[in-house]
Amino acid sequence: MATLQDLGVSAFINILGAFVFLLLFAVLRIQPINDRVYFPKLYIAGKRAADHRGARRAINLNLCTYFKFLSWVPGALRMTQTELIHHAGLDSAVYLRIYTLGLKIFLPVMVVALLVLIPVNVSGGTLLNLRKDVMFSDIDKLSISNVSPGSNRFFIHLLMAYVFTFWTCFMLYQEYSNVAFMRLHFLASQKRCADQFTVIVRNIPRVSSHSTSETVDEFFRRNHPDHYLGQQSVYNANRYAKLVKQKERLQNWLDYYQLKFERHPEKRPTGRTGCFGFCGRKVDQIDYYRARISELDKRIASERHRVLNDPKAVMPVSFVTFDSRWGAAVCAQTQQSKNPTQWLTNWAPEPRDVYWQNLAIPFFSLSIRKFLISIAVFALVFFYMIPIAFVQSLANLEGIERVAPFLRPVIEVKVVKSFLQGFLPGLALKLFLYILPTVLMIMSKVEGYVSLSSLERRTASKYYYFMLVNVFLGSIIAGTAFEQLDSFFHDPPSQIPRTIGVAVPMKATFFMTYIMVDGWAGIANEILRVKPLVIYHLKNMFIVKTERDRERAMDPRSIALGENLPSLQLYFLLGLVYAVVTPILLPFIIVFFAFAYLVYRHQIINVYNQEYESAAAFWPQVHSRIIASLLISHVTLFGLLSTMKAAYSTPLLIFLPLLTIWFHKYCKSRFEPAFRKYPLEEAMEKDRMEHASEPSLNLKTYLANAYLHPIFHMFEQEDQKEEATIEVRIDKSEHQQQQHVRSSHSQYEEETSAQTHYHHEERTSSQYQYQYQHQYQYQLEETHMRSEQSPPHFVYHPGVDH
Amino acid sequence: MATLQDLGVSAFINILGAFVFLLLFAVLRIQPINDRVYFPKLYIAGKRAADHRGARRAINLNLCTYFKFLSWVPGALRMTQTELIHHAGLDSAVYLRIYTLGLKIFLPVMVVALLVLIPVNVSGGTLLNLRKDVMFSDIDKLSISNVSPGSNRFFIHLLMAYVFTFWTCFMLYQEYSNVAFMRLHFLASQKRCADQFTVIVRNIPRVSSHSTSETVDEFFRRNHPDHYLGQQSVYNANRYAKLVKQKERLQNWLDYYQLKFERHPEKRPTGRTGCFGFCGRKVDQIDYYRARISELDKRIASERHRVLNDPKAVMPVSFVTFDSRWGAAVCAQTQQSKNPTQWLTNWAPEPRDVYWQNLAIPFFSLSIRKFLISIAVFALVFFYMIPIAFVQSLANLEGIERVAPFLRPVIEVKVVKSFLQGFLPGLALKLFLYILPTVLMIMSKVEGYVSLSSLERRTASKYYYFMLVNVFLGSIIAGTAFEQLDSFFHDPPSQIPRTIGVAVPMKATFFMTYIMVDGWAGIANEILRVKPLVIYHLKNMFIVKTERDRERAMDPRSIALGENLPSLQLYFLLGLVYAVVTPILLPFIIVFFAFAYLVYRHQIINVYNQEYESAAAFWPQVHSRIIASLLISHVTLFGLLSTMKAAYSTPLLIFLPLLTIWFHKYCKSRFEPAFRKYPLEEAMEKDRMEHASEPSLNLKTYLANAYLHPIFHMFEQEDQKEEATIEVRIDKSEHQQQQHVRSSHSQYEEETSAQTHYHHEERTSSQYQYQYQHQYQYQLEETHMRSEQSPPHFVYHPGVDH
Repeated sequence: MATLQDLGVSAFINILGAFVFLLLFAVLRIQPINDRVYFPKLYIAGKRAADHRGARRAINLNLCTYFKFLSWVPGALRMTQTELIHHAGLDSAVYLRIYTLGLKIFLPVMVVALLVLIPVNVSGGTLLNLRKDVMFSDIDKLSISNVSPGSNRFFIHLLMAYVFTFWTCFMLYQEYSNVAFMRLHFLASQKRCADQFTVIVRNIPRVSSHSTSETVDEFFRRNHPDHYLGQQSVYNANRYAKLVKQKERLQNWLDYYQLKFERHPEKRPTGRTGCFGFCGRKVDQIDYYRARISELDKRIASERHRVLNDPKAVMPVSFVTFDSRWGAAVCAQTQQSKNPTQWLTNWAPEPRDVYWQNLAIPFFSLSIRKFLISIAVFALVFFYMIPIAFVQSLANLEGIERVAPFLRPVIEVKVVKSFLQGFLPGLALKLFLYILPTVLMIMSKVEGYVSLSSLERRTASKYYYFMLVNVFLGSIIAGTAFEQLDSFFHDPPSQIPRTIGVAVPMKATFFMTYIMVDGWAGIANEILRVKPLVIYHLKNMFIVKTERDRERAMDPRSIALGENLPSLQLYFLLGLVYAVVTPILLPFIIVFFAFAYLVYRHQIINVYNQEYESAAAFWPQVHSRIIASLLISHVTLFGLLSTMKAAYSTPLLIFLPLLTIWFHKYCKSRFEPAFRKYPLEEAMEKDRMEHASEPSLNLKTYLANAYLHPIFHMFEQEDQKEEATIEVRIDKSEHQQQQHVRSSHSQYEEETSAQTHYHHEERTSSQYQYQYQHQYQYQLEETHMRSEQSPPHFVYHPGVDH
Repeated sequence: MATLQDLGVSAFINILGAFVFLLLFAVLRIQPINDRVYFPKLYIAGKRAADHRGARRAINLNLCTYFKFLSWVPGALRMTQTELIHHAGLDSAVYLRIYTLGLKIFLPVMVVALLVLIPVNVSGGTLLNLRKDVMFSDIDKLSISNVSPGSNRFFIHLLMAYVFTFWTCFMLYQEYSNVAFMRLHFLASQKRCADQFTVIVRNIPRVSSHSTSETVDEFFRRNHPDHYLGQQSVYNANRYAKLVKQKERLQNWLDYYQLKFERHPEKRPTGRTGCFGFCGRKVDQIDYYRARISELDKRIASERHRVLNDPKAVMPVSFVTFDSRWGAAVCAQTQQSKNPTQWLTNWAPEPRDVYWQNLAIPFFSLSIRKFLISIAVFALVFFYMIPIAFVQSLANLEGIERVAPFLRPVIEVKVVKSFLQGFLPGLALKLFLYILPTVLMIMSKVEGYVSLSSLERRTASKYYYFMLVNVFLGSIIAGTAFEQLDSFFHDPPSQIPRTIGVAVPMKATFFMTYIMVDGWAGIANEILRVKPLVIYHLKNMFIVKTERDRERAMDPRSIALGENLPSLQLYFLLGLVYAVVTPILLPFIIVFFAFAYLVYRHQIINVYNQEYESAAAFWPQVHSRIIASLLISHVTLFGLLSTMKAAYSTPLLIFLPLLTIWFHKYCKSRFEPAFRKYPLEEAMEKDRMEHASEPSLNLKTYLANAYLHPIFHMFEQEDQKEEATIEVRIDKSEHQQQQHVRSSHSQYEEETSAQTHYHHEERTSSQYQYQYQHQYQYQLEETHMRSEQSPPHFVYHPGVDH
């Protein structure tokens, strides 16, 4: 048990650590070489060009910039909320509000608790006399444990529990109302986007002698005659996507070798085809990759042909578009078919939010998947120690020596051996915790959610259960989750709050240290971005071959909501549980919230680039988790007081959870529809405004390709990009063009002259271009012939007149 | 503890009792005097006229009819399901299916259980050796208790648990699918009715300077421009309804005295105005009532004027009608407003299903009401013994003697005293159980549901909790619910299934007796209709003055779903719990289901007249209660086996509840939407068919008065009836009319001549008629002036040209 002094030392070390991190950050962030690690969002938003701040120089030599190590703070705070929403989207802005909500809740609570409860607790002064068998620290003098059992002082704690609960609920209500308003406002002021007019229809029944698109068309023409516009079939393009990815990789290598050759025209790059270039036939790299790409192109073309023509490649899912937001809102919120497992309609997620792989799961399979995954999550939360213990028992030194006898001499070295013996057992656990979010994400994917945002929300909720049981309860009851489960079954329910209640004040110092190590240091690590920094520079050294690669190596990612939300919710839980019990913990939480707020504000402005925009769809979850924390805090207090011989507390405390539950239900019915449904009033208003401002808008063409599988889009973009690159290259290599003698139209013709070869590449690209166009033209005609009524589903080059 | 012989005796007595009841019924039902008690539905359906089977004779003298005492059975079975739906509605037909479902589930289960489990249990033969301290009956030799602990025979019980669960789930699935289909078919083949086009809108916001109807009109014209037709405001007519009721009562008395006077023209009826005609001024009854009626008429008129003109009488609720089922389905299923607590839309219940008093409850109040009522139900279920014990402690003999000393001589008589002492303590409990359904119904009303059908469903679910805790658990654990609750908190959760599991086989004989007494005798009582029989004849003797009164005294009522569903569900629970444990209980349940099926089929055909039609909306509840019963049976078996040292059973049994829960979730998502939503496909199809068959239908006039407060309808009917009566009387009293000399047009003019007076009544009535018409005309014009656009809300005499 830590005394106040121990805690002070720990705090000092952690503050020092955070300070060092901040200093490091201050130094690293102004190095131009790190610019893409610390400001990727600005690059993406186009606010910073590739040659910003003399990117040619790798190191910043301007000394005076080194002294302003907190200079990022004002910059982070300067942006208003509106600008922030504009810059990074509503998700990010609302994510930040979780931190301010924490501050809003806990600052007044802390002030009241420190002013009222600490004096009460300190003057209690009976703890040491009464229980000599338990070790108590100085912290306990400030906590509720210091009050003598049966004392009337507990009335003050009870009162405070009421005050804190009401205050929290009040703030929660305010915040829910604000966020709901922000969401509606955001949706209302959003520019026209495809998802406003689109509904995703799943489980389309197969009608024999009809194609899926015909079935959909007929169904919606019949049941939504006034507003139905069109539909976009979903193709099972997974194999196609794989091929395109493969081609991309090859193209990259080709680019690399061509650049290399350009720099050293005296030597054509060669290599071996076998594994990692170690074995196999020696070939000319440029020729080799070109040949492989052309071969892939043919396969891609035939695969695309298959996808477009094989009725089996069309999935029983469709994106149905309407001519007004009203029509889409109606279709998304109503039941279509007599059989409620068919024609399931829902709002289409944003195109970039769609998780394409899950679209085709049938209803029955979905219900089984959900069931199995919920069992799996339960098992994971409560029994995750079993496989880890198993791995640990395998992964001992003897096992390793048996499997890999050649390592024996190394292992037998004494230092290595002791290190490994200390390290190995923990390794499995560390590894497990590291991959846990990924595992949970995979589980959510198996469950069959069709949008990335819902996948992240589901992952967050699974992770929360894990943290709640294994971090919070696990630390308090000090046992594995499995032991907790066992005691839950074999102890009377009235015993459980007592067990928790008694242990809670004793674990206060542990959680203070936890907040410092996990919270403070975690945030400092967050701003320093150690992992992305290292990865970026590693990539830069080994993998990056072209400017495009560098851009890709930048990869700012989104805020990892799946991990961050649960840990934030854990801090709320700690704050609420300890507010009455050991109020001295609150300052630690407040420091965390304030610091994290600053850091995340900076990161959101400069680093993260949200993959999708869900318009704060995660807020109801945050809200209900905080409510759950309130309830847990009531149960704890209940158990604690019942061991403190404060019998009168039972009837007084019972109303608190009841009122909280009622409050939650009220909020749910009051605000949650704003996050699940789209009011017709809103839709109609927006339709009307749009109609007034753009009466001649052709929605059909606007929506035509919105929900194309991204892989087709990507392909299209690449084509365009290639075109652009070619033009640039032509400008650059004009002098080379003069030397160009032969003009070849045959694609597979052998070329030996380097210049001609280089030039040939342009040609081939152009030919590709032509070929593509020709092919599209053909396919379009074909599609047209297949179904006269339905519009062509794929238009690859909107700019090109067919 | 009962032996098999005891049980046999009990069964014999009960069967004899039922037989006697059936004989009595056979005798009573063919007495013409009881015709209106046993065949009211036929009167209402118009299949039987008032003078059926020589109703003039009170007693049936045709002896041969007495010998066919089961002759009602074929009649009850003859009707096909389609005819039944046509005759009594879908609710009744589906209600009967619950009984057949019981038979379908339990007949095969019984056969298998008797063939497999009984031999296994009997040959176990170890019970009496092992536990000598517990009293066991012969029944236990047939039950699972007879198998020696740790025996491998429990595998057979486990297997049977799986088989029974799968069979039950299979039947449940079949039945849910059937009922859902029947519901959709019923709705699809239903004739055009107002509720198909109407949506109830609650929580309409008050807009200053707009009347509610204008607000509604504007809102729906804006947001549903293509389908909105009109709206019907809801008036707070509670006071008006009271006045009308009062007038009705007075009118009845007037009729009575006039008839009396007609029969004995020599003596004008007189009486006193004070309490019960004992004191007060002596008056001429006909004059007195006539004066009071005319006074009431003025008050009614002014009240109606107030209701129609006072904007405060218009409630923030409206019935909004659409020009198509599609439009109504869309509006009912979507969210209208940005504020999810305003403009709440839902399907309008049938006009006769509306519970008018609850329409105006605002959203916030609703959420508080629900919360308070759920606490109250919890308290009622677990603590209902407390007030009863309190009443019991008050209602002792000393208390009565103190309050009413004049009863002392009577009470002190020894026989009376001992009777009272034995009777009084139970009285409070009996009284409580008698009024319990009413109390629960009042609670549901306070909760704020707006349709009678949902009120009944809510009552049923409350009653089910009460029965589950106080009848099922209460009998098994043998303690008050409060004690159960206490042990639930202070025993480990793993102990609870054990406690129940151990007690379950021991209570088998109790439940067999319960099934006979409550089930068999209850059903026999149901067919005999003792209470309605007595009440009808009492009314006939004392209250009935006119034919209209007799019709009203008939009052067949609806099936009391609020009480019947929970007790049926209790039988399912008993059957499922005991199927594996003590299969000998199953025949009792099967007899109950078969007998009850016959009786209710007869009653539904001949007696009950459903007040509303909810199209089997109660089925999802029945389904989930049976699922809950399955789960309870698993828990019981789990606890039982864990005390039987059958440790291997734990992992084998755990899948059963999990699979059941999954099955429930699947069924819920598969079928429940059919009971909650109206698919657009269906709506569109019906719209289209109707449009094809009746292209020139004027829906607006059809829907104009559909959702008028019933009190206005009633009034209108009365007016028409009065008109009819007057015409008849004029015919009858033509010879009297000859004597009529003076013709009076003043309404309040004093008249002394009986004949003239009698005749005057006709005049006044006609004048009323005229007055009303005039008044309506006036009001209509006024309403018209108030809002030019909105159509007049009240048209009282559609037949009269204004």
